[in-house]
Amino acid sequence: MTQHSQQFASDNYAGICPEAWAAMDEANRGSAVAYGEDIWTQRAADRFRSLFDSNCEVFFAFNGTAANSMALASLCQSYQSVICSSSAHVETDECGAPEFFSNGAKLLVAPSDDGKLTPDMVRALATSRSDIHFPQARVVTITQPTETGQVYSIEDIKALSAACHELNLKLHMDGARFAHACATLGCSPADITWKAGVDVLCFGGTKNGMAVGEAILFFDSAMAEGFDYRCKQAGQLASKMRFLAAPWIGMLESGAWLRNAQHANGCALQLAQKVENLPGVELLFPVQSNAVFLKAPDSILDNLRDRGWRFYTFIGGGARFMFAWDTNPDVVDELAEDIRAAALG
Amino acid sequence: MTQHSQQFASDNYAGICPEAWAAMDEANRGSAVAYGEDIWTQRAADRFRSLFDSNCEVFFAFNGTAANSMALASLCQSYQSVICSSSAHVETDECGAPEFFSNGAKLLVAPSDDGKLTPDMVRALATSRSDIHFPQARVVTITQPTETGQVYSIEDIKALSAACHELNLKLHMDGARFAHACATLGCSPADITWKAGVDVLCFGGTKNGMAVGEAILFFDSAMAEGFDYRCKQAGQLASKMRFLAAPWIGMLESGAWLRNAQHANGCALQLAQKVENLPGVELLFPVQSNAVFLKAPDSILDNLRDRGWRFYTFIGGGARFMFAWDTNPDVVDELAEDIRAAALG
Amino acid sequence: MTQHSQQFASDNYAGICPEAWAAMDEANRGSAVAYGEDIWTQRAADRFRSLFDSNCEVFFAFNGTAANSMALASLCQSYQSVICSSSAHVETDECGAPEFFSNGAKLLVAPSDDGKLTPDMVRALATSRSDIHFPQARVVTITQPTETGQVYSIEDIKALSAACHELNLKLHMDGARFAHACATLGCSPADITWKAGVDVLCFGGTKNGMAVGEAILFFDSAMAEGFDYRCKQAGQLASKMRFLAAPWIGMLESGAWLRNAQHANGCALQLAQKVENLPGVELLFPVQSNAVFLKAPDSILDNLRDRGWRFYTFIGGGARFMFAWDTNPDVVDELAEDIRAAALG
Amino acid sequence: MTQHSQQFASDNYAGICPEAWAAMDEANRGSAVAYGEDIWTQRAADRFRSLFDSNCEVFFAFNGTAANSMALASLCQSYQSVICSSSAHVETDECGAPEFFSNGAKLLVAPSDDGKLTPDMVRALATSRSDIHFPQARVVTITQPTETGQVYSIEDIKALSAACHELNLKLHMDGARFAHACATLGCSPADITWKAGVDVLCFGGTKNGMAVGEAILFFDSAMAEGFDYRCKQAGQLASKMRFLAAPWIGMLESGAWLRNAQHANGCALQLAQKVENLPGVELLFPVQSNAVFLKAPDSILDNLRDRGWRFYTFIGGGARFMFAWDTNPDVVDELAEDIRAAALG
Repeated sequence: MTQHSQQFASDNYAGICPEAWAAMDEANRGSAVAYGEDIWTQRAADRFRSLFDSNCEVFFAFNGTAANSMALASLCQSYQSVICSSSAHVETDECGAPEFFSNGAKLLVAPSDDGKLTPDMVRALATSRSDIHFPQARVVTITQPTETGQVYSIEDIKALSAACHELNLKLHMDGARFAHACATLGCSPADITWKAGVDVLCFGGTKNGMAVGEAILFFDSAMAEGFDYRCKQAGQLASKMRFLAAPWIGMLESGAWLRNAQHANGCALQLAQKVENLPGVELLFPVQSNAVFLKAPDSILDNLRDRGWRFYTFIGGGARFMFAWDTNPDVVDELAEDIRAAALG
Repeated sequence: MTQHSQQFASDNYAGICPEAWAAMDEANRGSAVAYGEDIWTQRAADRFRSLFDSNCEVFFAFNGTAANSMALASLCQSYQSVICSSSAHVETDECGAPEFFSNGAKLLVAPSDDGKLTPDMVRALATSRSDIHFPQARVVTITQPTETGQVYSIEDIKALSAACHELNLKLHMDGARFAHACATLGCSPADITWKAGVDVLCFGGTKNGMAVGEAILFFDSAMAEGFDYRCKQAGQLASKMRFLAAPWIGMLESGAWLRNAQHANGCALQLAQKVENLPGVELLFPVQSNAVFLKAPDSILDNLRDRGWRFYTFIGGGARFMFAWDTNPDVVDELAEDIRAAALG
Repeated sequence: MTQHSQQFASDNYAGICPEAWAAMDEANRGSAVAYGEDIWTQRAADRFRSLFDSNCEVFFAFNGTAANSMALASLCQSYQSVICSSSAHVETDECGAPEFFSNGAKLLVAPSDDGKLTPDMVRALATSRSDIHFPQARVVTITQPTETGQVYSIEDIKALSAACHELNLKLHMDGARFAHACATLGCSPADITWKAGVDVLCFGGTKNGMAVGEAILFFDSAMAEGFDYRCKQAGQLASKMRFLAAPWIGMLESGAWLRNAQHANGCALQLAQKVENLPGVELLFPVQSNAVFLKAPDSILDNLRDRGWRFYTFIGGGARFMFAWDTNPDVVDELAEDIRAAALG
Repeated sequence: MTQHSQQFASDNYAGICPEAWAAMDEANRGSAVAYGEDIWTQRAADRFRSLFDSNCEVFFAFNGTAANSMALASLCQSYQSVICSSSAHVETDECGAPEFFSNGAKLLVAPSDDGKLTPDMVRALATSRSDIHFPQARVVTITQPTETGQVYSIEDIKALSAACHELNLKLHMDGARFAHACATLGCSPADITWKAGVDVLCFGGTKNGMAVGEAILFFDSAMAEGFDYRCKQAGQLASKMRFLAAPWIGMLESGAWLRNAQHANGCALQLAQKVENLPGVELLFPVQSNAVFLKAPDSILDNLRDRGWRFYTFIGGGARFMFAWDTNPDVVDELAEDIRAAALG
């Protein structure tokens, strides 16, 4: 067992999955027209439309920072604002990218322990101010699943979109781990997006086994107007677009997009079930995707680090273990054993 | 012979070269730390430092639009300006990206037939206005080779950087096809960059056989301050950075970076030599890299298109043929034959 | 005669006219609600609506740089472009303000000797490119009168707006000296704005006798949506708005807006008529507003400067004399006499 | 007594004070060179340098939104951040202007009841994150006095600037009511700015009796580099600059700048002393400038409104009364009487 296999700090430490790799390999035969005019890009977009049972507009961006930031920028003006939860990645980990892409739109942050927004939070922020000196809310962004691994149910999303509709807000979904939410809910992608009132989805591929490349889906074509130019100007139009698009074909056609997520989710559940009743160890959040957040004393966490395990820790004793498409369940068992030993030791 | 092999519209229609592919494959084993903290990124940066014989700062961006625009934004303020030639890609083909990334810096355009800037042009633009109502020039950007395939000699660049130094301007090089210039000049990369006074180089990989990923080299570390944060905010920090970095390792360590360029340049020369004396056909520019610009009557160009050849045409009868790392010399011969037949027919 | 009275370099060297001053004085009695919720702002807006016979939306900004830049920013996206003439103030004298306010929109410049755009110029620029790599034109901006003092006739504007309509472009008018055009044409403000197809007008007050404060008129309310917030975010919402609005009341209710312009225009004509047939002296442009552009040898211009006259000169021997609301016709006569003496001497 | 004289909602409801008006009148004689090259602007800048006993760089902007936002933008990059208190005007009432002018810099907000920042708050925010995914703090902005009327003592500011120095942060002071702080502290302007470590001050004139026009003072000339161009591009360079500068001459030379503030502060104290011991009435903050924040039951506040008094109210029963240079002390007494009647009634 190498050091790397003990690495649970992030699901983007994993490499490229076989299905994505094979598709890139296949696309890498001969020449292809550039800038998305190729057959691979067309086919990938069509696969998304099939999967979502929607004639949606599909764009590709290099990473999630850009995908989410451009989507938000397209939904509001610089003098407007975006409602998000306090743990939203756009607020906590994008170094001001949404503000940069939108030329100054403000994020209005709702305190939230589990990262989920509720209609009441949205309503409170959207109606807190109505004067010219404060940016009016125009968009709500939710992360599905949240940064703490919590999943919005179909009903959750419908309730949010109803509030958005009432308040004249657009609903954006940051789906960096969208597949993992689908895997947990056992629903179709359409059920938790356009059928539930989501306007724009950023569907992440990187954390689920791809090298680069996130898809942006506009379920209302009118909102997508000019988005191709926006991507170009913002440095997000790939000349060899086929290498962003083809892996999606591999993922979607083979079912790996869902299988990978199911595997990662399964590893998280496996760990959670084996450690949740240990003395001193507590699950900070229910396990609903591919992350396990443990509350444990420093002695246990130090012990684990000494044994070579790598994970993120937070102030107050929280430890995050992330699982990927390639996580070895045997290593998860080893980790569980070591946690047990540390807890009982 | 398939349709694709007759495709000479752009050098970014080519795929990923074997050396880049193999390096990605090798990097795709197990896990690696994200966001450029991995061993591949370190090694790629070191290879650049060796190649340039410089302790330069190295960053990676997804594409040339972003690499050049971020570099320019880091060298000037929004209320300053950038001197470029009228055919500079940043002016003609980036959909306002330099203006967007810099939040409004203006491009001052020098008319230039071959796309090359001269010290006189720089001086004229930099000193044309000195009042508060016009943005002061702060950067000069040159494309090496230019968009018409012309190469700046070592002396050309030294003369430009001397003018820049005198006028308090920074010198940026858009090296989308930098390797092709090195191949033509037979010089070391250092000779036409920092040794000749270039401050920042964007070294393109995509047009030379990579999937994505351009390198940005700051030869003065002080100018690079904060550039990592700039990349992050601008949506240009790859989480799985190893897949942008590893191909560079493959290219640099194997020598493919130069070999590919030499091959493409050679194909261009091959075509030029075979058609330059044909009746009605004229080389618009000397062939100094991987492009051939032909002036020919519509009858000839239509004839070529009818035979399945693909290339860009410009108003006034110019046709551009671009050659890539994978261009088949036999097909170049076939093309030359068809041009001959059309011209003599 | 003091030095200042020989000053014809710019019409913004003049002070505040009596009508504007009196209105500020009147407004400066007691308290008033801030940020434009006061009675003066309401009344000024109503006066504009009467003058233009239009239920237009009216906003006030501190200066023309901001008024024009915000108007343009509201009419296009950052990845789109604005068509203007090569001598347009937004291109030549705003230090990149339109690019800054719009977050990167590009100005597409039509070469024009007299500063006027024609439908053909607009059509050529708007249709020159249709690919993703170049920003699509979305707005046309014309200066009425132009920076060389030329006036667009009603028919000129109708022809331009017809072209705009056909090409899906908005038509913006930079009216820094709008009153002077009305004075020349003898038409109503409506005739050369909304009735001729102009979407947004920036109506300048500063050059016509006010201290600060330009009005922005949207003839289509839908286009004005959110513009109040835009002004606020861009630092253009005055807390004591009454002092921007009241002078407009003074100007509009007293007729000074037109009288001042007629006076300035008259001074220009007066000079032109007295010098146009002098040897060596040539009018560079017909006099259609408050500027006279003379072509004259250096000997004449130097002679004038020696006599204390102040004016702008341009490369090639052009000299610009600007006249203001307070120009003393006797001094214009003195200037004409000195030009005659210099020319005949 | 008119309705207006009962107006205590804001100190920017007041008009132009006699000293500012007289100076504008004096400046309005004949012509003057535009864009700040006039004698008035020079003289106003010199007066600031005398008052602050500093060879500082002085600029003028139209309003506080722009002055503060441009100052902050000049002190950090788009990918950096600004530390402020939760009640800072730049955070709560500028509609995203700092984010817009800086092209995306984030405000890091320290919860603060009285609006004051402490070195501990600054240290906590500046050191909370050091990874690439979060914007590094580069500036601290404090409002003197705060939005709740609290004044930073000389020692407070020195302690903050020491922390800033240690953490490599610049210290910016939003002095929308700077004169009021000087009046309260009885110190020289230098004592609470550059002598205490402040790098840049925005000195507000509007709330203290001017029509428009805030001064921006850079105590370190190097930091001011290019700020004139920044003002121009951002639409903050007045053509008839004398009308922004002259009122400052009137204020500074006559001493009105301090006298006005003393008067307004005195009115606040007068009210506070008369109502602080009334049953049900409580001062939310000590009165240290020209604002009184009262906590009182709705019955009292409604009663006051019924009697024609106008003031801002906040959730939880707070009422804000602001006093201006022209507040009539007799009316303050009437207000105090009405509060007493309402409280005792």
